[in-house]
Amino acid sequence: MPTLDLSKDIQFAHHLADLARDVINPYFRGDFSLAQKSDLSPVTQADQETEKKLRALIEQHFPDDGIRGEEFGFKPSRNGRTWVLDPIDGTKSFVVGRPTFGTLIALCHDSRPVLGIIDQPILKERWVGAHGTPTLFQGQPVKTTACLNMASARCSSTSPLQIPHLWEKLYKKTCMMVWGGDCYSYGLMANGGIDIVIESGMKPYDFCALIPIIQGAGGVMCDWHGQDLTLESEGECLAVSDKALIPEILDFLKS
Amino acid sequence: MPTLDLSKDIQFAHHLADLARDVINPYFRGDFSLAQKSDLSPVTQADQETEKKLRALIEQHFPDDGIRGEEFGFKPSRNGRTWVLDPIDGTKSFVVGRPTFGTLIALCHDSRPVLGIIDQPILKERWVGAHGTPTLFQGQPVKTTACLNMASARCSSTSPLQIPHLWEKLYKKTCMMVWGGDCYSYGLMANGGIDIVIESGMKPYDFCALIPIIQGAGGVMCDWHGQDLTLESEGECLAVSDKALIPEILDFLKS
Repeated sequence: MPTLDLSKDIQFAHHLADLARDVINPYFRGDFSLAQKSDLSPVTQADQETEKKLRALIEQHFPDDGIRGEEFGFKPSRNGRTWVLDPIDGTKSFVVGRPTFGTLIALCHDSRPVLGIIDQPILKERWVGAHGTPTLFQGQPVKTTACLNMASARCSSTSPLQIPHLWEKLYKKTCMMVWGGDCYSYGLMANGGIDIVIESGMKPYDFCALIPIIQGAGGVMCDWHGQDLTLESEGECLAVSDKALIPEILDFLKS
Repeated sequence: MPTLDLSKDIQFAHHLADLARDVINPYFRGDFSLAQKSDLSPVTQADQETEKKLRALIEQHFPDDGIRGEEFGFKPSRNGRTWVLDPIDGTKSFVVGRPTFGTLIALCHDSRPVLGIIDQPILKERWVGAHGTPTLFQGQPVKTTACLNMASARCSSTSPLQIPHLWEKLYKKTCMMVWGGDCYSYGLMANGGIDIVIESGMKPYDFCALIPIIQGAGGVMCDWHGQDLTLESEGECLAVSDKALIPEILDFLKS
């Protein structure tokens, strides 16, 4: 891919993330008794209200850009650019009051994610990844940790339900398993804290923002067959801190 | 149990938690490459240094009190009082850089926990529970949420390895499963965000501090047979936001 000047898009994506913080934060830990309902009322409300406002801002500034959001579906692109939004990734963490959910904002060029933000609104922590530039955490460049084999890897997955036939094996194959991270685990990978994330059941709005962040920090993100993830992908995702891990993990995932 | 005046002990426990913050915080996210080693060097170092300082402060102010810590074992009590310490509960979260680990400080009278603190040093969040008084979060009283049955309960466990034969059933029985919380999940229960925590492999330094916090917020903590947990207990722990849940869960745990 040729070098892209994404500086204006990065600036705009920061505005989107700032706006999401303003909408989401008042809902956090707001009324726990409501959160118990099966429709997860507060999270739905915060999710929908945030996505509406982000979409309006995108439509105002970039009327020809496409938009794909978790709550309000797909607006086709007229110029090859598509914004991909998940206002609250990690709804269960949000519902129980744990500040490790995140707002995900991605920009794709022709189905390829070129810009991604993970924003934790409560902790005011933000990761920004953009094609061809180092990933930034709180404005500072970060790097994944070198990791040559699964035996020395710190591994994470949000839930054993995403990897029901693998989770017990991962305890034997890796040096550490940590559960329940959602997008925050990918941010920690960019910072050097996690070496492997294996998940399934992922949608484009779950993973598009993560790809430029992981790549820009020195890691690799792909599906369980080693293929690139795009706006058309769905399902199984793998992120690693070090490409040296890829052959061993792909073999493991086949087994 | 008669009413206890724990005000001086609460004040002292705050000093202990403040001291732990000062020791732990510089280690957090300090050097991720070290954290990968099998001995978890930075967490061990932070753990040991914190426990040493807490023990020294206790010995200085309360030379006759017993001390039980994760790192440096058991000093017998000469007066029936025992402090129970876990400087970093949730070492894996600490190692990967996730701010949901906690410092646990408890005071037992004759094996019964009467005072407990959960402190999250990075977020500067603190829960304080003391026999006969309402649990405080950031100095304000908090309450668990009413929850009449498992079907409407938000459930949590740190890892499926703690409940290998139960975790899949819990997805069917409860309205939500959230993973990977360590002591922080019990704090969220006190705040009203979680209804059930089921864990095993627990030691007194893992659960003693949690008991006064859960009880003072309106919940119940016991073993998987409904028995009280004391300084002599070990293994399986259950915490619920509402005592109405107990019969159904004990039946479930037997099945």
